[in-house]
Amino acid sequence: MPDPTRRTRKDFPYLIQIPTRWSDNDMLGHVNNVLYYRYFEAVVVRFQMEEAGVDWINDAVSPQTVETLCRFHRPLSFPETVDAGLRVERIGNSSVTFAIALFGEDDETPAATGHFVHVFVDSDTLESQPIPAAMRGVFEKFAAP
Amino acid sequence: MPDPTRRTRKDFPYLIQIPTRWSDNDMLGHVNNVLYYRYFEAVVVRFQMEEAGVDWINDAVSPQTVETLCRFHRPLSFPETVDAGLRVERIGNSSVTFAIALFGEDDETPAATGHFVHVFVDSDTLESQPIPAAMRGVFEKFAAP
Amino acid sequence: MPDPTRRTRKDFPYLIQIPTRWSDNDMLGHVNNVLYYRYFEAVVVRFQMEEAGVDWINDAVSPQTVETLCRFHRPLSFPETVDAGLRVERIGNSSVTFAIALFGEDDETPAATGHFVHVFVDSDTLESQPIPAAMRGVFEKFAAP
Amino acid sequence: MPDPTRRTRKDFPYLIQIPTRWSDNDMLGHVNNVLYYRYFEAVVVRFQMEEAGVDWINDAVSPQTVETLCRFHRPLSFPETVDAGLRVERIGNSSVTFAIALFGEDDETPAATGHFVHVFVDSDTLESQPIPAAMRGVFEKFAAP
Repeated sequence: MPDPTRRTRKDFPYLIQIPTRWSDNDMLGHVNNVLYYRYFEAVVVRFQMEEAGVDWINDAVSPQTVETLCRFHRPLSFPETVDAGLRVERIGNSSVTFAIALFGEDDETPAATGHFVHVFVDSDTLESQPIPAAMRGVFEKFAAP
Repeated sequence: MPDPTRRTRKDFPYLIQIPTRWSDNDMLGHVNNVLYYRYFEAVVVRFQMEEAGVDWINDAVSPQTVETLCRFHRPLSFPETVDAGLRVERIGNSSVTFAIALFGEDDETPAATGHFVHVFVDSDTLESQPIPAAMRGVFEKFAAP
Repeated sequence: MPDPTRRTRKDFPYLIQIPTRWSDNDMLGHVNNVLYYRYFEAVVVRFQMEEAGVDWINDAVSPQTVETLCRFHRPLSFPETVDAGLRVERIGNSSVTFAIALFGEDDETPAATGHFVHVFVDSDTLESQPIPAAMRGVFEKFAAP
Repeated sequence: MPDPTRRTRKDFPYLIQIPTRWSDNDMLGHVNNVLYYRYFEAVVVRFQMEEAGVDWINDAVSPQTVETLCRFHRPLSFPETVDAGLRVERIGNSSVTFAIALFGEDDETPAATGHFVHVFVDSDTLESQPIPAAMRGVFEKFAAP
């Protein structure tokens, strides 16, 4: 696998802009490391709602977060706008793994990289379920070549 | 009305402890002013659930926030533990006004004072409703003499 | 004073867009009331930095929040983008009061209205100071007619 | 390595209590997955300040977060109080890896497990530095047998 820290925006087929907020910075003057996961969540939730058509409130089968990871390469800071990129890294029977990268305004390579794993579950029993076919098709479209 | 900035912990019949979190501080090294409302919310929600018996998810009539205000007298800072005091300042037909004060560890008088107004509404139509009788009784118990 | 709940976007000479985040919604499915102050802060901080030229880290005299208030008229909800409007309501010797309004995507009148009071202080002693002349000029430009 | 999901509170030599806040829950009625990292941060920051004596503002060499990971086994929910456990999993030349576990009130085994990696850096140049000797001694005391 190529080194994820060398990826650029064009390696991510889904990319959104996230304006930082004043209070995203902590006492040390940079975006607090917990907030990186807020940005991860932003790109994953928007992708799942807008591209895959997930509706967490009403769907009988919906994705649940089972693992997230972030590696911090360089600080991000308010007031810059962050670009958050997503690509589908792995599609299992019930789970999908997104590779995520965050780019600062002047960054060519990511300030942070990581992943986000969703498992589809029955919304009542919480037992894992196969990825619905239509969503699997969407994930394939956004997968790495 | 006596000056609320001179009140002490014993003027508040309901008082809870709130440990600050590292990230409650902002770039300037003090608790960010938005977080004061997080502490207000903490004491109001806990009072409404534990004392008044409010269940926001299931009750047919439940309180909704219509106005909040905070005056900032002195900074609070992580890692201190904050005391949040509440007293019922006014009981209307549908609404109840809580006076709130936040005390730092070494404060005799409040670091911040303010209020929080709840209106009881029909959970479906959102039309205002009289305060349920049992809750009104609780509010009277915690009202200023 | 005209009823602030009837104001529209054009009554606010400074207006920014704030994308909501998934987690801005709380258990009840609407933007949590504390977050409204996050949006207030966003528009005030950006105005002070970009228009008035405030630099909280380096300026010898800088604005400190002494009072904020919000009235909640209608719920806001992720994923809508909120318009936050600001106008200067009152200019004192040391203090400036901003009137704030938040508009949902389909709102003509505000979903929430409130104010935000900044007092200029000496960054070391925290004693109040006259508003620096250049900033006073900016505030006058954004004041209500 | 024993399965971390089977660990209990007594496998963690450093353990703190974290009261959840109303707004830690998201729309789905459980603690939002980003907040788990807020709890991770709480236990790591408190350990580093109180046990290892870290002072992020003044120390010439201080720890910086380079990687965090969380696996979500069962939901946590407000209003429960969470126990956050920490043990030192690995001590390198410049870095220390903490194993973290979060326990709900009725949990014998963790609701979430993960790790948090700190690298000590020169606060000016951000170049990595050996762990200061006194801190290394503390980390050894809290390491797994």
